[in-house]
Amino acid sequence: MIITHQIELESRGSLSVTNITEQVREIVHSSGVQHGQAIIFYRHTTGGVIVGEHEPGIIADIQTMFEQIAPVARNYYHHLRAVDFNGHAHVRSALLTNHVVIPILEGDLFLGTYQDILVIDDQTEPAPRYVAVQVSGE
Amino acid sequence: MIITHQIELESRGSLSVTNITEQVREIVHSSGVQHGQAIIFYRHTTGGVIVGEHEPGIIADIQTMFEQIAPVARNYYHHLRAVDFNGHAHVRSALLTNHVVIPILEGDLFLGTYQDILVIDDQTEPAPRYVAVQVSGE
Amino acid sequence: MIITHQIELESRGSLSVTNITEQVREIVHSSGVQHGQAIIFYRHTTGGVIVGEHEPGIIADIQTMFEQIAPVARNYYHHLRAVDFNGHAHVRSALLTNHVVIPILEGDLFLGTYQDILVIDDQTEPAPRYVAVQVSGE
Repeated sequence: MIITHQIELESRGSLSVTNITEQVREIVHSSGVQHGQAIIFYRHTTGGVIVGEHEPGIIADIQTMFEQIAPVARNYYHHLRAVDFNGHAHVRSALLTNHVVIPILEGDLFLGTYQDILVIDDQTEPAPRYVAVQVSGE
Repeated sequence: MIITHQIELESRGSLSVTNITEQVREIVHSSGVQHGQAIIFYRHTTGGVIVGEHEPGIIADIQTMFEQIAPVARNYYHHLRAVDFNGHAHVRSALLTNHVVIPILEGDLFLGTYQDILVIDDQTEPAPRYVAVQVSGE
Repeated sequence: MIITHQIELESRGSLSVTNITEQVREIVHSSGVQHGQAIIFYRHTTGGVIVGEHEPGIIADIQTMFEQIAPVARNYYHHLRAVDFNGHAHVRSALLTNHVVIPILEGDLFLGTYQDILVIDDQTEPAPRYVAVQVSGE
């Protein structure tokens, strides 16, 4: 069995984080899949998805790290086109990866105690963001 | 066919690396799956899994890089809760990703010559660590 | 249904980028899979695969970032073996991840508007590089 849903998020951008664990869990439960996997796939090029602890301090630390690695206020080659000015976000996305794959066991996501599914969106303006969730298995 | 196992590691933490390639390969062989995939999923928020070369110098270089990007001896927002003091590990985990997916072909992991499956555990204290291995296919 | 192909690339190395989206799309189309997933797996330890925008400025920005994080002209422990001198590439690979998993919907890759599949190869010399593409589903 394979089912694919899409979650629409209203994101503030600028490395804002949305915890979608419960939404993904509901998709898994309603699918009836007992044993299989879930793919969570962010469909943009300025952000990504991680499995991590949803704690405000950790999120602030991650934001600080990405600002250190690729600051917003730096010149990027991407800006030479003069179409958009989000070079920092594309660069950070290469480090983030845009998807995670999570095993499903006994009808539930097989996550560790502190693991949540976190969408990190780094667009420069608030915008709707789309995340595909595909559940497959038996 | 889908089977899910869990590997328990005794890790020293502090970016120590455990090569689990042979353990994963044995799970694949005993599953009888000839064509499919293996998901290797680290069930904690302070480390991750990579596919890389298991050479001591490379591991030392990766450790040096993470200490450069997110040093242990830095103040992290995560520490303001005063519960634990592993902010560096959570930040590094965002860059590492906690899982890999590997194709299975002719009953074996379809890895390149120098590719091994390496668990990088960055907890501050030695602790048991759990890694799920899910094999699916025909 | 599961099919596995291998793409051979002639890469210049040194963080050169090859857009393989169309090759992967053709493999998906010829497989006949309507609903499922594609795994794209780089079979080397000096590079990786990302989903990102294929724009020359962004690629130059990513190259600049990796040179900042792990410069070519630095001493690496990996070089103490005196076999090869690509320590920078192994370190960067730990951040890149060597594979992506993409949902397939209605017979096509379920990518966002600007998303392409980009192989980033960081070997020091031009060499043939192998990327496995596994398509599974219904």
